[in-house]
Amino acid sequence: MTQGITYNNRVGEALDSVLAGIDHTRLVVIADENTAQLVVPRLGSTALAQAPVITIAAGEENKNLDTLAQVWRQLGELGATRNSMVVNVGGGMVTDLGGFAAATFKRGMGFINCPTSLLAAVDASVGGKTGIDFNGLKNEVGVFAMPRHTIISSCFLDTLSTPEIKAGYAEMLKHAMLHSHELFTQLLHADFDAAFNTLEFLKLIEQSVAIKQHFVEQDPHDNGARHALNLGHTVAHAFESLALKRGKPIHHGYAVAWGLVAETYLSHKLFSFPSADLYALATFVLSNYRAFHITCDDYDDLIAFMTHDKKSRNGEINCALLSICGQVHCDATISPNHMKEALDIYRDLMHI
Amino acid sequence: MTQGITYNNRVGEALDSVLAGIDHTRLVVIADENTAQLVVPRLGSTALAQAPVITIAAGEENKNLDTLAQVWRQLGELGATRNSMVVNVGGGMVTDLGGFAAATFKRGMGFINCPTSLLAAVDASVGGKTGIDFNGLKNEVGVFAMPRHTIISSCFLDTLSTPEIKAGYAEMLKHAMLHSHELFTQLLHADFDAAFNTLEFLKLIEQSVAIKQHFVEQDPHDNGARHALNLGHTVAHAFESLALKRGKPIHHGYAVAWGLVAETYLSHKLFSFPSADLYALATFVLSNYRAFHITCDDYDDLIAFMTHDKKSRNGEINCALLSICGQVHCDATISPNHMKEALDIYRDLMHI
Repeated sequence: MTQGITYNNRVGEALDSVLAGIDHTRLVVIADENTAQLVVPRLGSTALAQAPVITIAAGEENKNLDTLAQVWRQLGELGATRNSMVVNVGGGMVTDLGGFAAATFKRGMGFINCPTSLLAAVDASVGGKTGIDFNGLKNEVGVFAMPRHTIISSCFLDTLSTPEIKAGYAEMLKHAMLHSHELFTQLLHADFDAAFNTLEFLKLIEQSVAIKQHFVEQDPHDNGARHALNLGHTVAHAFESLALKRGKPIHHGYAVAWGLVAETYLSHKLFSFPSADLYALATFVLSNYRAFHITCDDYDDLIAFMTHDKKSRNGEINCALLSICGQVHCDATISPNHMKEALDIYRDLMHI
Repeated sequence: MTQGITYNNRVGEALDSVLAGIDHTRLVVIADENTAQLVVPRLGSTALAQAPVITIAAGEENKNLDTLAQVWRQLGELGATRNSMVVNVGGGMVTDLGGFAAATFKRGMGFINCPTSLLAAVDASVGGKTGIDFNGLKNEVGVFAMPRHTIISSCFLDTLSTPEIKAGYAEMLKHAMLHSHELFTQLLHADFDAAFNTLEFLKLIEQSVAIKQHFVEQDPHDNGARHALNLGHTVAHAFESLALKRGKPIHHGYAVAWGLVAETYLSHKLFSFPSADLYALATFVLSNYRAFHITCDDYDDLIAFMTHDKKSRNGEINCALLSICGQVHCDATISPNHMKEALDIYRDLMHI
């Protein structure tokens, strides 16, 4: 289940080299309307030059069954077979949906991910989770399907807005907290005005992905050790579902930043996580991500979303918590009252 | 990848025993409107007594995206988690669609198959192929997902019409041809007026499934040895797609019987399969299954469907062919002219 990953800012060359080593018939690119315009022409891959591009609407709100059906239909019309190969070029929405489409078309064709957003590079494009949102719930349906290869670069990060960089950075912060106090502290000194499309930053991405891979390889199908990567995500997913219900979706990465604050309070409460680190995190998040606005009238909705979370067993609320950075306790069971307390503290720390 | 199979006409007891050995939280039954009424109440399982039943519309024409979305939605509303367990009770339409729904809900929950039709017992419910029809093509999307267990019985076969028995019997005939001349000859002596819900017939089913399992275990994801099971199916799938296009779907099992005739001619032509066996097969099929009506005006459509077949590489037509019963040649490449000749001979043999 180890997944091939190449870190290289000469993406076209890397793609050509990877494709030369994989038996396949035709190629099909899946991109969203932004990456089809801004990134695909810049790839510089010889192999992809003649490949048809399936262009889908951008945005998480389009990671749905209609878009999936549209991709399946176009794969059929393009004559794709299970020996064809999909190349997903885009953010997490494209790699999630494109990966799911490929993994289910004719019971499964291969796919290669070329993440173009920071969030996709450090998270969505590696580890084999694919899927779509359904019935108002994030990633409600999908499969585990490893990409044949992922080509990670920093060279397209100049196409991203600062909020998009920040969104990916939140997952890097999560990985850092799972890894060590040193990396956590290093990441708190971010300069979001600097350039990110550098080889130096690509090294930092590689370090972050290696942390994720460490957990994925122990537990590809997410039954145990991989739950560590859920840090911050029980609250994050609930925030996202609430935002979707309000008709104002929020960015997953921002939700993770806010979720980390709420759940790090639970780490402090239940596993004595150092309060100084909690405050440092909260200060960093508030100053760079501002806050997701909730009132206590939202608590029941949020708790309901958490008990519907894919990680939930028997309708319990489960979180991955830390005693210190680098020391994780998977699947802590959280009572609704503790969770409400964490949401209270989140509102205090976020000045809501 | 070896799949647990229990052969037992005391289905309720067998189910309870299997469920006792599988870690799961809640149970959800998926059945179609016929099996929900005729079979589920007869199962006699203690474990299932309180389980909610998701009832879907019967018939291949409902093995579609709308029904799949409906099942996903109901699984969500029932609070199913990835630790819940689906029990599919029905024919191949239910085990295909229910298996796909379970394998993709929250990125995959487990499922158990209780096939109630002969076709599902000897084919659809074992081997891990799940999916739905899409865009006018059979099983256009789906995944490979092994059921946690399959409980095979003959006791519900008394709920089937003779045509439904014959449909399943065609797959048994295919398995027999892959196995030995002796079993092939034995199966040509069918008495469709006899009772099929017997322990004796369950033994024959077990023998048939063992032949399928022999190929599945060598090649679960259908990249090589398993293609043997495609015998008769390249033509069968094209007939089914044509029938769907005409708005008059035909039964998969019947299509297999007719496809076996056309492809056995190709076996004779290209691998010297004995003509006496070809005529014996054609006589048996014509007298028990009558014929699917085609004219030479349909050939281009049929060829187009075959080149879109999931097994097709590079738009070629591929068939599994036999030199004698028990000796298979996977992935023979068939020219459109040879295929048209086979369709001509099929029409001759079927008195069209």
